[in-house]
This record gives sequence, structure tokens and C-alpha cells, in this order.
Amino acid sequence: YPGHACPILYAAWAEAGLFDVSELLKLRKLDSDLEGHPTPRLNFIDVATGSLGQGLGFTVCTAWLGMSAEGSIWEALSFASFYKLDNLVAVFDVNRLGQSDPAMLQHEMDVYEARLKAFGWNTYVVDGHDVEVLCKTLHDATTVKDKPTCILAKTFKGKGLPGIEDQMNWHGKPMGTKADELIKILKDNMSKEGPINLRPQTITATVPKSDISNIRFAEPLKYEMGQQVATRMAYGVALAKLGSSNDRVIALDGDTKNSTFSDKFRVAHPERFIECYIAEQNLVGVAIGCATRDRTVAFCSTFAAFFTRAFDQIRMGAISQTNVNFAGSHAGISIGEDGPSQMALEDLAMFRSIPGSTVFYPSDAVSCERAVELAANTPGVCFIRTSRPNVPIIYGNDEVFEAGKAKVVRRSDSDKVTVIGCCVTLVEAIRAADKLALDGINIRIIDPFTLKPLDRDTILSNAKETGGRIITVEDHYEWGGLGDAVAGALSEERNICIKKLAVREVPRSGKPAELMEKYGISANCIVKAVHSMLK
Amino acid sequence: YPGHACPILYAAWAEAGLFDVSELLKLRKLDSDLEGHPTPRLNFIDVATGSLGQGLGFTVCTAWLGMSAEGSIWEALSFASFYKLDNLVAVFDVNRLGQSDPAMLQHEMDVYEARLKAFGWNTYVVDGHDVEVLCKTLHDATTVKDKPTCILAKTFKGKGLPGIEDQMNWHGKPMGTKADELIKILKDNMSKEGPINLRPQTITATVPKSDISNIRFAEPLKYEMGQQVATRMAYGVALAKLGSSNDRVIALDGDTKNSTFSDKFRVAHPERFIECYIAEQNLVGVAIGCATRDRTVAFCSTFAAFFTRAFDQIRMGAISQTNVNFAGSHAGISIGEDGPSQMALEDLAMFRSIPGSTVFYPSDAVSCERAVELAANTPGVCFIRTSRPNVPIIYGNDEVFEAGKAKVVRRSDSDKVTVIGCCVTLVEAIRAADKLALDGINIRIIDPFTLKPLDRDTILSNAKETGGRIITVEDHYEWGGLGDAVAGALSEERNICIKKLAVREVPRSGKPAELMEKYGISANCIVKAVHSMLK
Repeated sequence: YPGHACPILYAAWAEAGLFDVSELLKLRKLDSDLEGHPTPRLNFIDVATGSLGQGLGFTVCTAWLGMSAEGSIWEALSFASFYKLDNLVAVFDVNRLGQSDPAMLQHEMDVYEARLKAFGWNTYVVDGHDVEVLCKTLHDATTVKDKPTCILAKTFKGKGLPGIEDQMNWHGKPMGTKADELIKILKDNMSKEGPINLRPQTITATVPKSDISNIRFAEPLKYEMGQQVATRMAYGVALAKLGSSNDRVIALDGDTKNSTFSDKFRVAHPERFIECYIAEQNLVGVAIGCATRDRTVAFCSTFAAFFTRAFDQIRMGAISQTNVNFAGSHAGISIGEDGPSQMALEDLAMFRSIPGSTVFYPSDAVSCERAVELAANTPGVCFIRTSRPNVPIIYGNDEVFEAGKAKVVRRSDSDKVTVIGCCVTLVEAIRAADKLALDGINIRIIDPFTLKPLDRDTILSNAKETGGRIITVEDHYEWGGLGDAVAGALSEERNICIKKLAVREVPRSGKPAELMEKYGISANCIVKAVHSMLK
Repeated sequence: YPGHACPILYAAWAEAGLFDVSELLKLRKLDSDLEGHPTPRLNFIDVATGSLGQGLGFTVCTAWLGMSAEGSIWEALSFASFYKLDNLVAVFDVNRLGQSDPAMLQHEMDVYEARLKAFGWNTYVVDGHDVEVLCKTLHDATTVKDKPTCILAKTFKGKGLPGIEDQMNWHGKPMGTKADELIKILKDNMSKEGPINLRPQTITATVPKSDISNIRFAEPLKYEMGQQVATRMAYGVALAKLGSSNDRVIALDGDTKNSTFSDKFRVAHPERFIECYIAEQNLVGVAIGCATRDRTVAFCSTFAAFFTRAFDQIRMGAISQTNVNFAGSHAGISIGEDGPSQMALEDLAMFRSIPGSTVFYPSDAVSCERAVELAANTPGVCFIRTSRPNVPIIYGNDEVFEAGKAKVVRRSDSDKVTVIGCCVTLVEAIRAADKLALDGINIRIIDPFTLKPLDRDTILSNAKETGGRIITVEDHYEWGGLGDAVAGALSEERNICIKKLAVREVPRSGKPAELMEKYGISANCIVKAVHSMLK
């Protein structure tokens, strides 16, 4: 969708009576929802546009994607034919021009058609300026079975405007001094003066009612203290249970369901699981589409590292006011031998940067299950970071969790330093505490549970009780993760000293324990950091 | 490229005599470069693998992409045929299986072929296990003109291994207790016992010598103090000049060259400009490919917001030890009316998270030109953030810049607060200083020039002279940008208080000045923050 063409969409809605025509003059002004590129601040917009090639992924039924070469389009085209989506009609506005040059294929309608046919689509090539033909073709498309349809509409940008039609260098530009003359030409070409008082038909169909509020597990958790369970496993278990509590819960994965354990949801609720194959941009796009207008509570999973592939879709999702929940497994160097390409070490920086996001980083299976339950009921983008190795259960089954509420995992009245860790590094912190205790040094340990919102008050009050000394330890790069989050949250506090333990270079393959030692986030490293801080 | 299949590649190189066969037993161990997925730590690897669908973008001449639906592949396919790359042969290992399910198209060789033909490729469908046929086809491919060639090789995973061949659930798994039996079967099928003492042919061709060290502008800069110039304009001017200084400098853009001003390079050096159209994943992939083995100094530009589309490629680029320079224009809310989809507000968090990266955020045209010159000579990923509006020249043409060296832009002996801003917010800080001076309050102003490395010493010594008070003000979201970078860098310092002014919600369309006021980063907001800090 060429978002900056939205004035015509706004005008159509005004014409249809949704709001007063005078509102149109507030286009792009700060106090108006008629923005430069449309967002769901307007009630007729489901998803924001302005970043190209995402429309089809959102399964928006009409997509104007003509000038874009974005690979995400081909991911979506492939998905739509694989699942035989015959209720989908995509309109390609093939207008020949890009922003700075003609598009690669310009008006080669036959090449576009061949590509779409090869991708399994039913195709029509039409004159995009012939409204009658467009209407007839849209009707014909409804009769096609087992295939999605695309209408390849050959168009000319600025059609009917002398000196502008089919010319470069008019992309996103107002007509300036030429405006009056050009408006006159357009008016002269209209067969009827407006307003023509069109009104939308009253819709009589009703949408099945759904309640997606307050989704909770039907049963209590049944873990045993100390039991070894990976948080990614707990994710799958929790998601499957949540699906039993509410039939609007859906799950999506990108061919990693046997690693993220979203497969547990598929086994329990196969009709609500969408396999999106290895195409993460489309995976995220489909999830955002499914979650529009609160039709579903969508959980979307892959390796956390591979969500970087869809950062633009996630960013646009926030602008689209999406409530999609993202679960990224295989966080950090603790995955071990597979090496750096599979290790998520930038994911916390990425999801923290999204406005309105909630970033869960649960430290055991109990808290991970609760993170899933909370995410289902939390507006905005939620991210749940899970890890590959088993970690011990440290919370009772009845422990209550809340976004923005940290847990003090270990404390004494003589604690010298507050150590903050998550999951695998919380385990290391506990080991460090045991070692330090042998030397008569006690440390406070905090599990933040969510990095965003971060429980500033709990961290601050505990830090004050430990001489203002904090050590953060994270299985993530130094920049934008736990350490920066804590430093950022406490930046206005004087008399606090925060030492950050984090990964600082591209890691290698190796055993998890070896890697944590080498890259400075093991129990030994924490012990050293405590000693150096107390010097 | 299925990176975890690298043991066979390692074995082939050992067989060819590059290193001792005994090294192979160190596979995936911490002290060995034979990692789980290969990286350029090995001298026969140009780019790291492990994240699918990036190989073609790197223009690696043989690509095994069979099981992936990643859209980036179609971006690369489209690019290769558009530019008639007849020296490119891609091998598709169509092995039918994904990680958790069969791939969408399984062994539908005719569908693969139709898609590739539609994308303008010469195609061969072959039995991927027939080495003789593969060799002949590779030879035939060299005779094809004006088209890239792909060899669609039908293969079976685990070929020849009973109970494994063509079966799911063996992805990335060792054979365990079955190993001895299966190795015996493989050996029985070999016509010759190894080692067969193959040695690579000695290469006689020579590569043209190039020197990409110490690339400098040939002429002095010629700005006037106070002159209004956008940093994005300075980027284009500098890049064109750099291209004249060294013929290995190349530029790439994604159909935004008239906005990023990389067009100035295209006009000056058309033969070294690569238009990649609107396909940012491929844009970044091509840049990384071009920069391997120091063959070129690549500068790659688009709107900074759209680099989020290629975060995975950038992340993998760091693992591939790339030296590509990224220039992102249209930073932040100061772009104005186009609205949030076009505003980069997460880009600093993204590029800071990359290990070894250098993040330039120049504040005027002089410093921006120097950032371009420095980036050309700086190893690792460099990011240059440019802005849309004009800003005044504040540095003399002879001012010397260095990564990691901040500039104190304004100082007096009675400064009460240190304010740190970049580009548009540095302009606001200077305005705030003028307003505050009327009330008799002086402030110190620092331009960090690079956010990574951050000039901790200069910031700290100035902060100490201003009562430990720092205000950061940035045209970026609160999370992972300037404020967090400063807080993170000074986290171990007690007696420092940092107030962060940043954008905290999805912004709207509006005039730049209105937006900066509304979202809390204008001169007025800085004045208020100073007053509240001094209370």
C-alpha cells in the first residue's frame, strides 16, 4: 500500500459520511488523525502502512504492492497459494515508477503475470484506470476456487494530469503552484459534480462474538522445586494449556516448532496452529494480521535470533497497535555448539526499543508459564525470551507474577552487592552466591522477570541496602540489554554503582559452560566482579 | 547454505591439505575455528552462514537454499536476472525436508523450475547425487549468456543411510549409537579407500592489486559557519569525493538515492553505483558480498528506518567480519509530516547492539563529511545516522574528528548542567543554552560525534565540572539510544545524575518543531529539564 496516497482514502471515507469533509484540510497536522501514512488511530485502518511489502503478510485483502521488490511479498505469495487462500484478492498497482528510478520491471505485465502464476496464483491483467473492468474482475475473482487471485492493474501515476502523468520526480510531492490548474482539469473530466452523497450499505451480517479478556490456565502448575526444565519447554506447555482455556488463542511458527516447543500447541489444537515455514517476515505479518480487531490472541515463535529478520514488521506492528506475542527461543551463548548465527544476543535491545512493548525474560518454568499467561492479557507487543538449556525450578507453583514486578531470590541482612540475572545467568548468580558465602560474603539476588517495564523500585531499594552496588549479568551483548536497562532506569540516582557483565564480542562454538566462562557471565566471573567491587 | 552441514566442507579442505585431518576431531570445540556454523575465522569462508536465505544476496556463487522460503532469496533472484549476471551459478539443494516438517514444495521440481524461469533464470533440473551430471551441468552453465543459471538438484537428506535417508527428525543431529554401522555402510559404498591425496590446482591467475587504506578527501571542506545544510546532503557530497580519491569506493542504495543523496555518488561515479531497488535485505547482502576480502569499500544507504528490514543480514554481517558502512537518513521525528512509519527511532539501539560496530551521529555537515571519511577507514560495521532538516554548520572546515572523541560545543566556568545532544537535538540544546543564559544559567554542551565508541572520559570530566548533572536529549526512542548509552557508560560512576529526554511513544504526523515540542526533545523541554534538575 503506498501509504502517502492515503488522502484519496481519507476523501472517500469523508464522502461516505464517516467524518466531515472539512476534516480533510487537517491532513498531516499534529492535532489530526489524518496522518501522512495511515495508522489504526483511524477506525477504518487495521494496520499501519509506509514500509513497503508488508501488506500481503497482513493478509489485507487488497494490496497495492506494484513498485516494490521486497522479498516479504514473495514469502506471502508462496504462503497464500500453499494454503489455497481463495478468499484472498490482491490488487497490484503496477505503475512503473519507483521513488528515484523506474521500477525493475516497469510495465512488463507478462513478467509479473508469469511470476505470479508460477507462485500458484490465479491472475488477471487489466487496465487499472477502467473502474468498470476492475469491478467485473473483482466479481470474477470470487468464483475462483483453491487459489488466491491477483489483479495486475496497469496504471500510470498522476493519470490525467499533464506534465505529471507517468513522470519521475513527483513521488510524495504536493503539486504546488500547479494545483489550481490541475484541479480544474480533473473537474472538467468528471461526469458529475460532487458531493454525490454515496453512503455505505448497512451491514447486516454479524460477527461471532468472542471474549479474549482474562485468559487463565484452568489448572494449577505442577512442578517440583529444583526440577530441571528448559523455559522453552515451559513455553510450549503453557501455550497448549492457554489454548484449552480460550479458543481464540492461536500459535504460529517458522518451521522451528520442535525447538521452540510451540509444537505442543499444534498437537493439542491443530486447527489453530499456522505453520509459516522458514519465512519470518511473513510469519510476523500473518500474526499481526490475525490479531487485528482482537479477533485472536496470537503467539508467534521462532529462534529469538531470527526475529531480527522481521524487525521492520515488528516496528510497523507497534505503529499498527498490535497485541501480538513473540516468543524467541535459543537465547544467547548458552545454546552452545551451534555457534553465533543461532545465538540471540541483540534481541533484548530490539524488543526493548519497541514503544509500548513488554519484555519478559523468565528464569524458570513456573515464571515462564506465567509470562505466557500474562502476555495473553497484556496489550501491545509482548516478547518472551526463552533459553535452550534446562534450568532448575526456583518458584513455587502458586507464586504470583506481574509485569514490572521483580523477585528477590536471595537475601540476608548482610548482603554486600545486589546481583541481577535472568534464567541461565540467574542460575550462575545463585552458584556465585554459594561460593561467596564460603568466604563469608553474602549477596542479594534479583530476578527482574520483565526487563520492560523494569521494577525500578525493587532494584533501587535493594541496591541501597547493599551499599549502592549492583552487578548485572546477562546472556546478551552489552549494548541495549539488561545492563543498559538497569543503568538507564537508575540514571537519575546518585550513589549507585552498576557493573555490567555481558557478552562483548562475536562468540564461538563450544559447550555452554565453557562459553559462559570465556565471555564473562559465569558464576566465577560474578565472584570476581563482587570481589573487585568490594575492594 | 545449510551451515550445520559444514563438517563435510571442513573434511574436504582437510583432504585437500589445508590443515591436518586430526583437526577435524575438534569440531565445535571452543579452541577450534571449526565452528558449528562456519565463519570467516576460517580463511576459506567469506561470509558466515546459519541464517537462511542470505547466501544469494552475498552473491556467493554456489548457494544451497533448497529448504528455505525466505523472501530475501526472491529479492536476490530478481536482482541477478535484472542485471543479467551470467557469471552466477546458484545450486539449489532441493532436499524436500525442513526442520520440523517437509518444506512447502517438497520435491516439486517443476514448480521450482517455473518460479526460477519466471524470475529470468536459466535452469537445469538434475539428480543432485550424480556427481558426473553436476560437473557437466556446471560446465554447461558457463556457456550461457545474459542470464544467471541455477541448478535445481533433487537430493535426499542422509542419502544412502538406511533409516535416515529422506526421513524427518534427523536435522542437525549426530547419529549416536548408529554411527559405526552407518560409517561402515558408507565405506562399503566407496569405490576407493581414502586418503586419495587430492591437492588443489595451483592458481596462476593474479588478482589486480588494490589499496584501500587511508582513503582521504583530496580537497579541504568549504562550508561557512552558520550555513544551513542537512547532514544527509553532506553524506552524498562526501561520498562522491571519496569515490574520486579511491576507485574501490562503491555505493549502493534501495531506490532512495534522491533522499539519502547517494545520488551524488552515482552522478560522479555511475559505474560504481549499484541500484538495488526496494529490497533492503538484498541491498545489505549485496553490500556485504561486495566488501568481502577487502575488494571494495562499500557504502550502503536507505532511510535509517528501513535498515530494520535487514537487521538479520547486518547481524550476520558482523559474524562475517564485514566492513560495510551503512548510512541511514531521515532519522527520528524531525522528518515531520510523513509520520512514524518513515521515522527511524530504533536504529541507534539496533546498530549499537552489533558487536564491534561504530555508530556515527554527526551534528553538522562538516562532521558528517568527516564521519564518511572515517567510516571508510574503520574496520567493522559502521553506521552513519543522518537527518532530513537543514542544521547550521558549527565546526570549522579544519576541525579534526575521531571516532570516540566528543566535542565540547559550549562551555563556561559556571556551567550548571552538561547537556548532550546530536544533530537536531544539539541545535535545540544550543537554543536552550541561549534561553537559559538570559536567566543567568549557563550549561555545558557536548556533541558525542560517535555513540559507539562513546567518549566516556570527556563526558565524565565535564559532568564532574557541572555538579554531576547530565541531560541527554535524542531524536530516538528512550530505549537503547543516546541516553541508555551514556547511562551505561557511566554506570560505575557514583555521584552522577542523568536525565534522559527522548521519544517515548509512537509519534504522529506534524511539523518537525511541533513534534519535537510534543515528544519532549525541544529547546523548551531542555530548559524545563535544566530547571527541574537544579531545583
